Amino acid sequence: MTSLEATNANSQWVLTLSCIDGPGIVHAISGAIVAAGGNIAESQQFASADTGRFFMRLQVEAVAQPDTFDARFASALAPVTERYHMTWRLDRAGRPVRTLLLASTATHCVNDLLYRQRGGQLSIEVPLVLSNHEAVRDIAEFYNVPFEHRAIAGKEDKAAFEARVLEVVEEQNIELVVLARYMQILSPELCEALAGKAINIHHSFLPGFKGANPYKQAHQRGVKLIGATAHFVTSDLDEGPIIEQDTVRVDHSYSVRELTLLGQDIESRALRNAVKWFAENRVLADGERTIIFR
Amino acid sequence: MTSLEATNANSQWVLTLSCIDGPGIVHAISGAIVAAGGNIAESQQFASADTGRFFMRLQVEAVAQPDTFDARFASALAPVTERYHMTWRLDRAGRPVRTLLLASTATHCVNDLLYRQRGGQLSIEVPLVLSNHEAVRDIAEFYNVPFEHRAIAGKEDKAAFEARVLEVVEEQNIELVVLARYMQILSPELCEALAGKAINIHHSFLPGFKGANPYKQAHQRGVKLIGATAHFVTSDLDEGPIIEQDTVRVDHSYSVRELTLLGQDIESRALRNAVKWFAENRVLADGERTIIFR
Amino acid sequence: MTSLEATNANSQWVLTLSCIDGPGIVHAISGAIVAAGGNIAESQQFASADTGRFFMRLQVEAVAQPDTFDARFASALAPVTERYHMTWRLDRAGRPVRTLLLASTATHCVNDLLYRQRGGQLSIEVPLVLSNHEAVRDIAEFYNVPFEHRAIAGKEDKAAFEARVLEVVEEQNIELVVLARYMQILSPELCEALAGKAINIHHSFLPGFKGANPYKQAHQRGVKLIGATAHFVTSDLDEGPIIEQDTVRVDHSYSVRELTLLGQDIESRALRNAVKWFAENRVLADGERTIIFR
Amino acid sequence: MTSLEATNANSQWVLTLSCIDGPGIVHAISGAIVAAGGNIAESQQFASADTGRFFMRLQVEAVAQPDTFDARFASALAPVTERYHMTWRLDRAGRPVRTLLLASTATHCVNDLLYRQRGGQLSIEVPLVLSNHEAVRDIAEFYNVPFEHRAIAGKEDKAAFEARVLEVVEEQNIELVVLARYMQILSPELCEALAGKAINIHHSFLPGFKGANPYKQAHQRGVKLIGATAHFVTSDLDEGPIIEQDTVRVDHSYSVRELTLLGQDIESRALRNAVKWFAENRVLADGERTIIFR
Repeated sequence: MTSLEATNANSQWVLTLSCIDGPGIVHAISGAIVAAGGNIAESQQFASADTGRFFMRLQVEAVAQPDTFDARFASALAPVTERYHMTWRLDRAGRPVRTLLLASTATHCVNDLLYRQRGGQLSIEVPLVLSNHEAVRDIAEFYNVPFEHRAIAGKEDKAAFEARVLEVVEEQNIELVVLARYMQILSPELCEALAGKAINIHHSFLPGFKGANPYKQAHQRGVKLIGATAHFVTSDLDEGPIIEQDTVRVDHSYSVRELTLLGQDIESRALRNAVKWFAENRVLADGERTIIFR
Repeated sequence: MTSLEATNANSQWVLTLSCIDGPGIVHAISGAIVAAGGNIAESQQFASADTGRFFMRLQVEAVAQPDTFDARFASALAPVTERYHMTWRLDRAGRPVRTLLLASTATHCVNDLLYRQRGGQLSIEVPLVLSNHEAVRDIAEFYNVPFEHRAIAGKEDKAAFEARVLEVVEEQNIELVVLARYMQILSPELCEALAGKAINIHHSFLPGFKGANPYKQAHQRGVKLIGATAHFVTSDLDEGPIIEQDTVRVDHSYSVRELTLLGQDIESRALRNAVKWFAENRVLADGERTIIFR
Repeated sequence: MTSLEATNANSQWVLTLSCIDGPGIVHAISGAIVAAGGNIAESQQFASADTGRFFMRLQVEAVAQPDTFDARFASALAPVTERYHMTWRLDRAGRPVRTLLLASTATHCVNDLLYRQRGGQLSIEVPLVLSNHEAVRDIAEFYNVPFEHRAIAGKEDKAAFEARVLEVVEEQNIELVVLARYMQILSPELCEALAGKAINIHHSFLPGFKGANPYKQAHQRGVKLIGATAHFVTSDLDEGPIIEQDTVRVDHSYSVRELTLLGQDIESRALRNAVKWFAENRVLADGERTIIFR
Repeated sequence: MTSLEATNANSQWVLTLSCIDGPGIVHAISGAIVAAGGNIAESQQFASADTGRFFMRLQVEAVAQPDTFDARFASALAPVTERYHMTWRLDRAGRPVRTLLLASTATHCVNDLLYRQRGGQLSIEVPLVLSNHEAVRDIAEFYNVPFEHRAIAGKEDKAAFEARVLEVVEEQNIELVVLARYMQILSPELCEALAGKAINIHHSFLPGFKGANPYKQAHQRGVKLIGATAHFVTSDLDEGPIIEQDTVRVDHSYSVRELTLLGQDIESRALRNAVKWFAENRVLADGERTIIFR
């Protein structure tokens, strides 16, 4: 579990890293932290038997002189990250991640994310909601988030919409694109451009019921639980690395419409968790799988 | 929910029925109950929008003269079931259902079913456990259930095993065949012969991860929940009507072996529930789907 | 499970009833339905071993002449309800229940209820949100629901607030009062006046952690799950009949603030379910317990 | 999650420790590991805001010369544990913990624990099942575990039973005493003697429904979920530090007997998890609360 509280003081940093597994890594990293005058507030690690890689997430507080901790820490880390050929990232804990929301006709995910963003439960800031429908306009406006509508009637519209996405990502320094029930398939080019920073919510328990109308498929198959899956977007539809999943019990009496309504709750929850963990640097990629340091 | 208690008196009957939906069915059925001197202890019904059929399960107690209630009820029902062209079944509540268990190397499902059968929690009696491995022999013997081992080394063995299954079904008046992690694919002929009375437990949340090694598939795909599915056996592998499903949360750190061990718990639970409901006449078929009157 | 869809045609009625258990009740009721030209769309029943009473909920559609079904049904029912000394209620399915929301500083429950009311998922209409704080004003206004603020600084304010509640109940024909994290203890007189039609959400798994600061209590006790309870309000604090409960897993690392934030999700869910079921006439009282016909 | 697999090689050690929180602890510990020629396979830590203490669990594998790692590690650790005034424990990973089971009439918990012990899922060895009833005798014998029956008819019997417990603990080097639905209240003296190494399973979601007949209490209160709690035994009845809890959904139709049967499943699961984590040195005490390093 994680704490926004701990970051209130704005004197904590998050270090995430991965490298080939081997002895001495933790000692080297913790040595850099001691050298920089830091204290470990939170630490999680995982050695992947699948890829042979070591992953770590550290939350570090500056014991003294927080203003210059940044520089001290970076310089203490440099020889360590170099020696172990680490992929790493240092971020300030609690820094809001710049997030673009894409939406269509369903309102529940956008509503859930913006409600929680306002309440300080999600470490994101949302410069824009971009949608091919008007459905979430009033919600965005209520939460003081700019809303932009671009209808998609054909191929050209879709290309224009995607161009606009890339433009916003560029202009607004977007770090995370959330497909909050955005019901268009992204082009391979856009998937490529957003690799590792676009999260989609699919309304089924993947890999079951890929593609369109998953609740209709679920009804026909007569499943006894329905699910939702938040995953990174890749060009392989509904096949990207899974970040979070949830299920809820149903029975024979649920119509497709009732499954759809009930499913909204788990969709909102799964997506919200995925966004929260991403924004807190808790999601690391390990090949086709994700490591979630909760 | 269901009650074994209510059946302690041995004076309750279970009536299950289905017919084309329409007005007056409940009144006609309840009229037959009144006429026979019965009282409704439990009643559930469902009108399927998919098939247009009406389904009902009634648990009826004899108010007076329980010894002859059977005959009175049957004769009072006859004109009703005829008028509505009903498919129906009248059974004594709590009557143990004659059940054949098929097993292979995994012991958890057999152990769970026999433990609960002995404790009076499952309304079944088990004249035989038939297995292509010796793994569950001592468990069967501990629970005083005959055990028979028939190795399957090739096609002929498999045919002989299946012939033995049919023989036991015939000789022992078997009403339910439970594939308690029996790891052989049944021939289409056997599936056909056991249609509607064979239940399998598949170690995934169907329709995800059909076929072999579902936990390995689940690990590779990086799912955040694993599942188990109890379903009727059909010749279409892992596609039979679903009776019960369950899931449990996992994370990136679970190895295939750990998924397998954790999954045993939900496999046992899902299978146990399916067997319990079947034995209590709570499972009705509605096309490719099941209605569960819990 | 239940269906708002079925009620779209506005030609369905809900009949709920209870009486001393005995033979013939279902037959008598179904006879009245047949006589009135109705068809049973949904039916649930329960015989309480604790109180010896029989409970039933029927959803009935008018097969012909829906405009006059009401009167026909009422007159066909009269001799039956009289003979069995029934407590009963006949309502139009899907009719929005007039609901007053009481709130204080927490916004999540009000937000959840109004969001779902707007989406057609809750069969309620809300003529007023009355609060002793301003926190939910903008949310109410966004959903076009009148908001009224009355500060409570002392005893007199509280009495005035309660008087206003009763006034609104009277003037607005309120059928349900929802304490959506309204953090004041109601006077015994108000509890009495609202008996059976006021629902509170308590932020613990009752009967654990009654009273104030349940999340703090939960943290101190080191529980591994936290819960929420929606219950009818009675003058015995946190002791009213329970309608719905839910729990969620936590661990040692959760601070009180984190428990509080996480708990909001289950509070919203438990309260939403309780309100939904109440509005659909699915909640019946059986002494100190509730029967929920889902 | 944790892995018994990793310990198959018998070359892993588990180090658990706690001390007053402060900078440099991880670096000092990891330095001792490097110095001893070890590699960190698993690591978890927690800083308690309640008590100001730091807790850590490390699973360490010997990179070279595993036969003498023990001694090297101990001597490298000594100055560190001394400097930080650590409470610590070094154990071989996967070493079976010597466990005494106490039982009465219920069989499900004993059956579950012994089934899993035999299957290699629990790192325990059980030299004795001691019971005041005969109910679990045949189960113990089936699993080749010595069984001893001592009836408790009065105060003297109870004192003798408790004396026998202490004797077994002494003679058999018992590290863990599991009250597997042992339905006698332990004397304060025995609680004291077994402090920190006796685990009880209580059949309710504590702190709700303490004391006798919790399912009866749950039924009367009309709760919508029932629960089970595994906790350390203290002389304050049902108040010891909680290790694990679980809940399952019920409804109005469940009788006390049905609640009892359903509850057995979550009792078995909660107790099994608590025993597993204890045996793997994953349970640390933090005042009245437990830290579980799963």
